[in-house]
Amino acid sequence: MSKTATDTLGQAIEAANDEVFQRLVKGDPVLVDVAPAGEVIPGLEDRMILHAGPPVEWDRTCGALRGGAMCIALFEGWAETPAQAADMLAKGAIKLEPNHHHQAVGPMAGVTSRSLPVYVVENRAYGNRAAARLAEWMSQFGDYSPEAVDVLRRWRDLFAPAIREAIRSLGGVELKPIIAKALQMGDELHNRPVAGSSVLGNALAPGLIQAGVPMDKLVPTLYYLGRNEFLFLPVVMASAKSVADPARDVEHSTVVTAMARNGTEFGIRVSGLGDTWFTAPAVRLVNGVYLDGHTAEDAGTDMGDSTITETVGLGAFTLAGAPAILSLTGGTPEEALQYSRDMYQITVGTHPDYRIPALRFQGCPVGIDIRKVVETGIVPILDTAISHKEPGHPTIGGTLVRPPIEAFEKALAAFEGKYGIA
Amino acid sequence: MSKTATDTLGQAIEAANDEVFQRLVKGDPVLVDVAPAGEVIPGLEDRMILHAGPPVEWDRTCGALRGGAMCIALFEGWAETPAQAADMLAKGAIKLEPNHHHQAVGPMAGVTSRSLPVYVVENRAYGNRAAARLAEWMSQFGDYSPEAVDVLRRWRDLFAPAIREAIRSLGGVELKPIIAKALQMGDELHNRPVAGSSVLGNALAPGLIQAGVPMDKLVPTLYYLGRNEFLFLPVVMASAKSVADPARDVEHSTVVTAMARNGTEFGIRVSGLGDTWFTAPAVRLVNGVYLDGHTAEDAGTDMGDSTITETVGLGAFTLAGAPAILSLTGGTPEEALQYSRDMYQITVGTHPDYRIPALRFQGCPVGIDIRKVVETGIVPILDTAISHKEPGHPTIGGTLVRPPIEAFEKALAAFEGKYGIA
Repeated sequence: MSKTATDTLGQAIEAANDEVFQRLVKGDPVLVDVAPAGEVIPGLEDRMILHAGPPVEWDRTCGALRGGAMCIALFEGWAETPAQAADMLAKGAIKLEPNHHHQAVGPMAGVTSRSLPVYVVENRAYGNRAAARLAEWMSQFGDYSPEAVDVLRRWRDLFAPAIREAIRSLGGVELKPIIAKALQMGDELHNRPVAGSSVLGNALAPGLIQAGVPMDKLVPTLYYLGRNEFLFLPVVMASAKSVADPARDVEHSTVVTAMARNGTEFGIRVSGLGDTWFTAPAVRLVNGVYLDGHTAEDAGTDMGDSTITETVGLGAFTLAGAPAILSLTGGTPEEALQYSRDMYQITVGTHPDYRIPALRFQGCPVGIDIRKVVETGIVPILDTAISHKEPGHPTIGGTLVRPPIEAFEKALAAFEGKYGIA
Repeated sequence: MSKTATDTLGQAIEAANDEVFQRLVKGDPVLVDVAPAGEVIPGLEDRMILHAGPPVEWDRTCGALRGGAMCIALFEGWAETPAQAADMLAKGAIKLEPNHHHQAVGPMAGVTSRSLPVYVVENRAYGNRAAARLAEWMSQFGDYSPEAVDVLRRWRDLFAPAIREAIRSLGGVELKPIIAKALQMGDELHNRPVAGSSVLGNALAPGLIQAGVPMDKLVPTLYYLGRNEFLFLPVVMASAKSVADPARDVEHSTVVTAMARNGTEFGIRVSGLGDTWFTAPAVRLVNGVYLDGHTAEDAGTDMGDSTITETVGLGAFTLAGAPAILSLTGGTPEEALQYSRDMYQITVGTHPDYRIPALRFQGCPVGIDIRKVVETGIVPILDTAISHKEPGHPTIGGTLVRPPIEAFEKALAAFEGKYGIA
C-alpha cells in the first residue's frame, strides 16, 4: 500500500476510534428494572439457556458451564434430575446461545433462562438496554445441588420482585454516580463491587418502603441488599454492556467492544469488524487464592462475560485503586498500580468521570485498541473468579488472568484483511 | 541516674506500653444507643456546653467554638438571639467544659448540650461507654444561623429517635467489623468515613423496619442514613474514645491516650501521667482545599476532638489506604503512603484487625509513644476540616495538619519529672 493510502487509513482509524471512545464515555447507564429474562431479553426462547462468552457447542463446554446449564434446567423444571438435564442438553432439547447475542451478559457460566429475573440497564444517552443475571456463588460456577437451585428460586420469588418494585418506585437508579463513587471507595467493580453494592443497597432501601413491599418481604430484602457484596456486579455488567453496545459497528475502528469467555474459548469483538468473534483457547487458571482447601489441581478454565467491565475501562483496569482485592486474587499493591498503568498503553483515552484516586485521580483507561495490544504485547489484565474444572461445585477462588494474545492477533489480521495495513 | 535504674525504668515503660497497646487493640466497640446527651453523659448539667479539646475559657475561645456554643444556646432556648447567647456565655451563665472530661468527644467545635442526642458506644471488652454528637457542616463549624439550629432540631426530633429505635431493635451494632471493612474501602475514618457511613446505613435499615418506625419518619430517615457521608464520623469517634479510655492511667506508660484541639490549644494526655493536658498553641490552618471561594485568609485554627481517631491508629494514620481523601485535603497518593509509613516510627505496634490494603494489609499503627515523637521529630499527622476564623460560618474546607511538637515535649518533660529519665 502507498504511503498516502496508509496515512488515509491511519486517519480513518483515528477518527473511528475517537468516535468509539466518545460513545463509551458518554454512556449514561440507569438501572430501570429487574424482570424475568423472558420478558425483557429479545429472542430468549423457551428451553433456551444463554451462557457466557462466544458461542460453544455442548460437547465442547467446560465443567462449570455444563453444571450451570444443568442447574438452570432443574430450576426451570425442564428436568427432574441432573442426569436428565445433562441428557437434554446433550441432545439439543435445550438450546445454548451466548448472552452477548441477546443484549445480555452474565457472570461466570452466565446461565440465564426465561423465568430467571435479570437486572435491566438503559443507556439513556443512546436509548438501548442490556440485561444481566444475578451474581451468586453456586449455579454460575456450575453447582446444580438443591441448594444452588434454591438460591435461584429465592431470587425469583422473593428478592427480584421486591427490588423491581423499589426500582420502579424510584423511577430508576442512575448508575454513573454510583460507579464513580465506588471507584473512590476501593472497588474495581468486577471482583470487588463491595462499595457499589453498599451504595446501591442504601439507594434502593427507601424505594422498597415507598413501593409498599410487605413486611415479610421487606426485612429479608433489606438484609439481602445490605449484606450482599456482589449485589452490584450484575448491575455494573449490564451497565457496561449497555455502554459498549452503541460503540459497535463503527467502520475502521480497531477498538474492542466485547471480551468474553465461555470456559472453552476467550473471544473478542472489534467495532470495525461487526459481529465476528475472534477467539483463542481459554486459559487454564493456575495461580490464585483458593477457598476451602482447593488447589490449582481443581481449577477450571477462565470464564464469564464479566470482562465486559474491563472492555469499558473498569474491572482490573482500575486495580490501582482497589488493593483490597488482592486478598482474593493474590499480588501486591505495587503490581496493582503497574497493571493499571500498563492499560493506558493499550487504550484510546481516559474516562472523564470515572477516576482512580491512587493514580492522582487519573481517568480510567478506556477503549482497548487491538493494534496497541499486538504492537506492545501488553494483553488486557482481567480479574476473575475460579470455578472447579468439574461440574457440581460452587466457587473455589479468585485470581488475575491475561487472556491469550492470539485473539487480538486474529482480529488485527482480519482488520488488515478488510481495511488494509495501517 | 545509674545504668541499672535506667534499665529498670526502661523495662517498666516497655511493659506499661505493651499493656496500653493490648488494651487499645482489644477494645470491642458496639453502638448501643442514640440518646439525649443529658440522659447518658455523666455530669452534663443544664446550661452547660461541652466543647472539643482541652479546657478553655470563653475569652480565649476561637471563632468556631464561640459560634458553635452560641448555636447550642439558641437550640436549647437559653437565648433568643445570637447576641444574647454570646452575652450569657461571656458572663458564665452558660458553663463550658471539655467533652473529654465527660466520657465524650465531638467533631470540630464539638458543642454538646443536654437535649442534643448523641451516639453512645460501649466498649464490651472493658464495659465502659463513650458518646459523641452528630457530625454536620454548620453548628460544629461555628454557624449559628436559623438553618444551623434547624439541622440540630431535625436531628433531635426526627433522625435521632428513629435511629435510637433501630439500634435497640438490632440489639446494638458491632463496630469492629464495620471499621475493619471501611479500611478496605478507602476510608481513613476521620475526614473520609464514606464507606463506614454506607455500611452502617445498610446495617441500620432493617432495624428501622423491625422497630416499627412510622412511615413519615421511616422514609426521610432511610434517605438520611443512605446519603449522609459523615454518618459514621461521630460513631467512630465515640468508638475510639471508648477504646482509648481503658488505656488511661497505666503507670509508666508513655503512650498518648487523647489528642484534642479546642481551636486555641492542641493538647494531649499520656497514660502514665493521669488527667493532665499537655498543650501548645493550636496551628493556624493555611494550606488546604477551600470551598466556595474561601481562601487561607478566612481559615481558623486547628480544632476538634476527632483526633481521637488518630489516637487509636485510625484517621490520617491510615491515609495510605484512603487516597480519595486527597481531593478534600490536597497532597499526592505517594505522600499519603509516606505519612502512614512514618506513623509506624512513632507507635508501639500494629493493629491485628484493622489493616491497610495499600500497605500489603499491614495493621494500622497504634499507640503513639511520646518518646518516639520527641526522638524522631515525627509529629502525628492529622486530618482536619477547616472552620472560618470568625463565628457564624459553615465549613470552608479540609486539610492535613501537624500539631505542635511542644505538647509532646512538655509531656515527656513531665514524664521524666515523675519517673526519671529513661
